[in-house]
Amino acid sequence: MALYVQKFGGTSVGSIERIQAVADKVIGYRQKGHDIVVVVSAMSGETNRLIDLSKQINDNPVAREMDVLVSTGEQVTIALLSMALEAKGCPARSYTGGQVKMLTDNVHTKARIRSIDDEKMRADLDQGRVVVVAGFQGVDEDGNITTLGRGGSDTSAVALAAALKADECQIYTDVDGVYTTDPRVVDKARRLESITFEEMLEMASLGSKVLQIRSVEFAGKYNVPLRVLSSFEDGPGTLITLEDDEVMEQPIVSGIAFNRDEAKLTVLGVDDVPGVASKILGLISSANLEVDMIIQNTAECSTTDFTFTVHRNDYQKAKSLLESNLEQLGAREVAGDNTIAKVSIVGVGMRSHAGVGAKMFAALAEENINVLMISTSEIKISVVVDEKYLELAVRALHTAFGLDAEEA
Amino acid sequence: MALYVQKFGGTSVGSIERIQAVADKVIGYRQKGHDIVVVVSAMSGETNRLIDLSKQINDNPVAREMDVLVSTGEQVTIALLSMALEAKGCPARSYTGGQVKMLTDNVHTKARIRSIDDEKMRADLDQGRVVVVAGFQGVDEDGNITTLGRGGSDTSAVALAAALKADECQIYTDVDGVYTTDPRVVDKARRLESITFEEMLEMASLGSKVLQIRSVEFAGKYNVPLRVLSSFEDGPGTLITLEDDEVMEQPIVSGIAFNRDEAKLTVLGVDDVPGVASKILGLISSANLEVDMIIQNTAECSTTDFTFTVHRNDYQKAKSLLESNLEQLGAREVAGDNTIAKVSIVGVGMRSHAGVGAKMFAALAEENINVLMISTSEIKISVVVDEKYLELAVRALHTAFGLDAEEA
Repeated sequence: MALYVQKFGGTSVGSIERIQAVADKVIGYRQKGHDIVVVVSAMSGETNRLIDLSKQINDNPVAREMDVLVSTGEQVTIALLSMALEAKGCPARSYTGGQVKMLTDNVHTKARIRSIDDEKMRADLDQGRVVVVAGFQGVDEDGNITTLGRGGSDTSAVALAAALKADECQIYTDVDGVYTTDPRVVDKARRLESITFEEMLEMASLGSKVLQIRSVEFAGKYNVPLRVLSSFEDGPGTLITLEDDEVMEQPIVSGIAFNRDEAKLTVLGVDDVPGVASKILGLISSANLEVDMIIQNTAECSTTDFTFTVHRNDYQKAKSLLESNLEQLGAREVAGDNTIAKVSIVGVGMRSHAGVGAKMFAALAEENINVLMISTSEIKISVVVDEKYLELAVRALHTAFGLDAEEA
Repeated sequence: MALYVQKFGGTSVGSIERIQAVADKVIGYRQKGHDIVVVVSAMSGETNRLIDLSKQINDNPVAREMDVLVSTGEQVTIALLSMALEAKGCPARSYTGGQVKMLTDNVHTKARIRSIDDEKMRADLDQGRVVVVAGFQGVDEDGNITTLGRGGSDTSAVALAAALKADECQIYTDVDGVYTTDPRVVDKARRLESITFEEMLEMASLGSKVLQIRSVEFAGKYNVPLRVLSSFEDGPGTLITLEDDEVMEQPIVSGIAFNRDEAKLTVLGVDDVPGVASKILGLISSANLEVDMIIQNTAECSTTDFTFTVHRNDYQKAKSLLESNLEQLGAREVAGDNTIAKVSIVGVGMRSHAGVGAKMFAALAEENINVLMISTSEIKISVVVDEKYLELAVRALHTAFGLDAEEA
């Protein structure tokens, strides 16, 4: 007998039929003797409907009232799911974020969770009830309704699982787990049985969209085993957990992430003196543009080249900004390319294995793919390549690191 | 400078345009220096939309969850109205029933208010904010969301006005006040400048639909001056207040109420002994049928006739019930008529005036209207007449008691 926190997103509760299906799934777990706390989002479309209403009043509505408005979306779902459970003979009780004292700071529309009062939920579970909690919302110390921002329901679920010391936090989505890479690009992509929090964080920040980074961070911090499963088909999904020291043979690389939204800019002929990087990046960040990879080569003469990547949408803005400040930067000219992509290999096994980079570059070279930039962290290596080689690079690396699914 | 509680119903906030209009009206009062607490219902149609969702799950949903569901309707409105006020430069803050601790008993879907915490509202008013409160909803002692039942928003407004000791509770509706009688029946019907709580209660219970009986009772109990006004046009409306002993010349009759939903039943030839009435009415109430007027004549012989009225929808059921229990009741037969109507004159002035009844019967006799039943209370006289004479009776009484509007 275990305690599971199960989170169902907007698509999974998007109609009365789907809410009924969620109720059936929950009851299935109950019948195996498990205690269940369910966290739900607003029915798909509902949050947008509410935001549209507010936009008819004002493009920039007061954040406090925005939270009062959109938090009704999950409140509707908890009531309907509890009704569906009760109608099927399963005792259930719903709670808004406020009612379980999901205490947050007071940053409306993107609040952060501070604590949860589990007393009522414990009492309900002890009495054999399923507890249904509204995700995405909380209250601040003064009782004002807050929301955690889009996707915050995952974080609510993890926070509840941590507070209740649940055996597992199960995130039901429209995919059946975390894959070695995007199956739409590599048809031999495999669902992973498990992956570590660190790897999942790298995968998420590199473009894999299965889970919100914030909820993975939270789960890692409180060591809440997190499982990604499909709402629509049965299956074990992927378990996201701490690194298991017992397992001798960690895979070296667990997954390949990639990202097309990249563009690179090179400032040519700047003085190779301290302070140049800060001048260039200061200029970029003053325009609220975010920088991803940064590379500066050791100079062979008194000047050097400085290269960095930005989101492709910010490319023109960043380029113009640099060009109109050439003199101030002491630079000769600006070059750029917005047809690049980033490919990354991720795996905690890299920590204890040498030669992973060499193997990666060899695999790319074999396909005649030129590497434009390289960046590394303890458990990942990212390369920038010409966009047109993206799929080829991902497939080559997927095979090289032994990730391909066996033929059925 | 006064403190007004202003309540706007579902039609008055039924669209973004109407919510904007309510904001303008509130700001108008603010600009005159008044403090304003606004109470709102769900946008028209929203409560029904939510109920329809629940009915797709279960015809008889759990009452606790029903309250969680439908209370979102008002929550959407308070957020949108607060946004609209803020967008027009008027500081505002919204509160759900739970947030102002509108404490109720735990009878879900028809809870009764016990107390209100005015601390936060006072603080907001002191800081120059308009306070926007969700009507119709509260919380019980355990923090469960409750609702007051349909029309409960009027009661919320009166309760808030009582708690805040407001100068006036203004109920905005789609009519511009309380009339001497229904203007659709009598074109000379006049809007009343004022009416007492007692008269309004009689008018409401006799069929006038302007205000919920419960909210009038509440206002009377706590002596909250209540004003009915139009949401859509300017005007003073009608003030509902305590009887003013200062006014020497109270009108004898303030209004004429009427009701078509009546049917009468007569049990003929029952023994004129104690316990007969309780036997008959016990039978009727055991079937959950409500009885309105009751009349038993003094008997001239050992048997008598017993007559009462029920709602017209219950007529057949009540008649069959009596007929199948004739023997048990010791009655000869049952007669009935479901084409009758009730007409009532209402006025606190009756207390100090003799001959009101005589005047009423004379006016009816003059039109050859036969009176079938009579029932009186301290401030009202009701008669039952053949339905076909209803309009004629109302017009005749309206004229006889000097209620007709002067020709423009």
